[in-house]
Amino acid sequence: MTGPTGPRSGVSRRRLLGYAGAGAAVGAAGFAGGIGTARATDGTGATDDRYAFHGRHQAGIVTPAQDRVHFAAFDVTTGSRAELVAMLREWTAAAAAMTQGRSVGSGRPLPYDAPPADTGEALGLPPGRLTLTFGFGPSLFADPDGRDRFGLEDRRPRALRRLPHFPADALQPARSDGDLCVQACADDPQVAVHAVRNLSRLAFGTAALRWSQLGFGRTSSTSTSQQTPRNLFGFKDGTANLKAEEPDAVEEHVWVGPDDDPRASWLTDGSYLVARRINMTIETWDRASLREQESLVGRDRLHGAPLSGGHEHTAPDFSVTGSDGRPLIPTDAHVRLAHPSRNHGVRMLRRGYNFTDGNDDLGRLDAGLFFLAYVRDPDRQYIPMQTRLAAQDGLMEYLRHTGSALFAVPPGVRPGGFVGDRLFT
Amino acid sequence: MTGPTGPRSGVSRRRLLGYAGAGAAVGAAGFAGGIGTARATDGTGATDDRYAFHGRHQAGIVTPAQDRVHFAAFDVTTGSRAELVAMLREWTAAAAAMTQGRSVGSGRPLPYDAPPADTGEALGLPPGRLTLTFGFGPSLFADPDGRDRFGLEDRRPRALRRLPHFPADALQPARSDGDLCVQACADDPQVAVHAVRNLSRLAFGTAALRWSQLGFGRTSSTSTSQQTPRNLFGFKDGTANLKAEEPDAVEEHVWVGPDDDPRASWLTDGSYLVARRINMTIETWDRASLREQESLVGRDRLHGAPLSGGHEHTAPDFSVTGSDGRPLIPTDAHVRLAHPSRNHGVRMLRRGYNFTDGNDDLGRLDAGLFFLAYVRDPDRQYIPMQTRLAAQDGLMEYLRHTGSALFAVPPGVRPGGFVGDRLFT
Repeated sequence: MTGPTGPRSGVSRRRLLGYAGAGAAVGAAGFAGGIGTARATDGTGATDDRYAFHGRHQAGIVTPAQDRVHFAAFDVTTGSRAELVAMLREWTAAAAAMTQGRSVGSGRPLPYDAPPADTGEALGLPPGRLTLTFGFGPSLFADPDGRDRFGLEDRRPRALRRLPHFPADALQPARSDGDLCVQACADDPQVAVHAVRNLSRLAFGTAALRWSQLGFGRTSSTSTSQQTPRNLFGFKDGTANLKAEEPDAVEEHVWVGPDDDPRASWLTDGSYLVARRINMTIETWDRASLREQESLVGRDRLHGAPLSGGHEHTAPDFSVTGSDGRPLIPTDAHVRLAHPSRNHGVRMLRRGYNFTDGNDDLGRLDAGLFFLAYVRDPDRQYIPMQTRLAAQDGLMEYLRHTGSALFAVPPGVRPGGFVGDRLFT
Repeated sequence: MTGPTGPRSGVSRRRLLGYAGAGAAVGAAGFAGGIGTARATDGTGATDDRYAFHGRHQAGIVTPAQDRVHFAAFDVTTGSRAELVAMLREWTAAAAAMTQGRSVGSGRPLPYDAPPADTGEALGLPPGRLTLTFGFGPSLFADPDGRDRFGLEDRRPRALRRLPHFPADALQPARSDGDLCVQACADDPQVAVHAVRNLSRLAFGTAALRWSQLGFGRTSSTSTSQQTPRNLFGFKDGTANLKAEEPDAVEEHVWVGPDDDPRASWLTDGSYLVARRINMTIETWDRASLREQESLVGRDRLHGAPLSGGHEHTAPDFSVTGSDGRPLIPTDAHVRLAHPSRNHGVRMLRRGYNFTDGNDDLGRLDAGLFFLAYVRDPDRQYIPMQTRLAAQDGLMEYLRHTGSALFAVPPGVRPGGFVGDRLFT
């Protein structure tokens, strides 16, 4: 029996099926011809179902937030810088293929007696607006024992270190940190899971999955074209989020500038990613009155309007008081404490997801918010705000941070380059 | 401040938002009027985004399989039959509302100082083709100590008992069994998770979540209108599944008939649900050659055609041999062992989902197939087939069954009735 070849890069998953399916596919032997004569027709540009992989910035940051995420953090298991770089090159090629709806594989025909280059569960699925966004953790530069395994310590960005301990933290090491990360966002979770699985497979012998998190519903809009979604408190979340349509604000608050950090110029046009797994005690929350819930959030639940009046996108007015003389937006309301006007004008690009991971022994859902935020400088943006929220935010009573990680997110990849190449050259 | 009322049954989630949003919503006090004057306009029939809740059979069985599932099993914590029945009534009302895109709540206005009737995270989302399918486990009739807590033992269906131990079982009690189950299927996982959460909340004090499982991608088609999806082995799954378009076969293999079991006539028009959490050792699978993978499955990977030739929907011919005289479909191939012709003509309606639940300490994904199958008689259909597969199927090397449960699925609910009412009256 002449075996078929594995699916190849350069052939779209759907086109491949359509083409070969139209041929005389008789038994396994029939497929090789169909595949072998199919040719790539996809460009690499963005269309309505895919985003370009190459560019000045990585996709998956200001890209309109897709509906689902599979996030994965890896530990590098090799001590060899060359092997690490080789893996990043392989990841780059695979990411360029998968984000365009193509299978993993470099166009080389594979013998029937070899494992397929792609695991196959996304065959026939559209690209699903998949984006793959890569980051480097502090431990890649100096591991917990202070070892500089890859000769990178002198290029470690100043702000790239483990986040400090915050009062409400109940962090689990198995859900925290990591040398590398991949954020796979897509409209179809099977496409996102397929991507993480294949990157994990390519990493075999070089890096191993440390933790991963699925998120089933986005909790932030990153574009004015999107409706504001709801978190598991039942409230609209991220109304005041940074949006792609505010290019000046994105430049100011998201992208690392060329003069930000002299020892980490490789990070220019990149960003920092804060990842926090935040459990919500939803059973307790669900027993709070609507009045209490709205007071804690500072917005009404149905429309997301600030309690000072107006509609969802009305700016909150923290000075308005009710007939009892007290502010309509309470002093410990989340919207007040997190507002830029109370945080030196600081904003973040949030890109979080709701999650549910089964339940505990008492029948309580293990559920909450997988918080993802991109910032230009965590020391100025995330850390002061979270310090303040952890101490004062009334919502903290219903939150428990169980995972935490910080990553430096390199700039976009140029054609021919690889993820983070400026760090290694 | 005059408080708004909670969202009400009878008002569609989307319409409610649209209506009140058009009004002068000024601060929290403004919303009450908008909501209060909105009126129900939705019927209860199926439209393109929702399925009828009432009917001869429960929805979510032959219904075209939706893309996502949140499955939950509950332990009843009360000893009171009246409390159990009251909860089933509440579940029924909530399910009738949520499947039609309405919020949980019985139309009664709620004071602002009470917890909202609905947890809210699905507000504004369409119904998402949500179906809620309920089942009763063996332990509801006689618990592990043999106690008949609710006076139901003499109506226990003959076939409703714990599944036997199969050779490849590595069952975890925390992922197995349960007095009650709810299968929530929807196109949007947030809709499915919202439904389970709200049913779980209504159960407070009467039943507690025992285990739950999210599935992100359907692995079976239950209608000829659907493409065959792929499992995490990368293969099309369920090609030969029972389809809604085969009404005679569905009658024969899925629905319990009036004469099937004299002591359980209440189960007429119902079914049995087999739930199995099947871990796949995908890292090992991914290192197998394409030749080995296809031999184990008995189909080609790209198109799902049987190795005896043809296309996906060609019937496999187990007698065809290759030039070496050996059968093209090996004797231990899954498709051969699971085929009706090798199982006394037995068929099942499969409705499974792919799952990924993080990873283990070695960086291996905790992933696989959440197998769900509806059968008229597990003793004739599932048990003999699984006994055979566990002993002979070459695929078993890559599978580990980690969860198991069997439920009797009562018939559909008539307007005015409640889930399982024929069992309790």
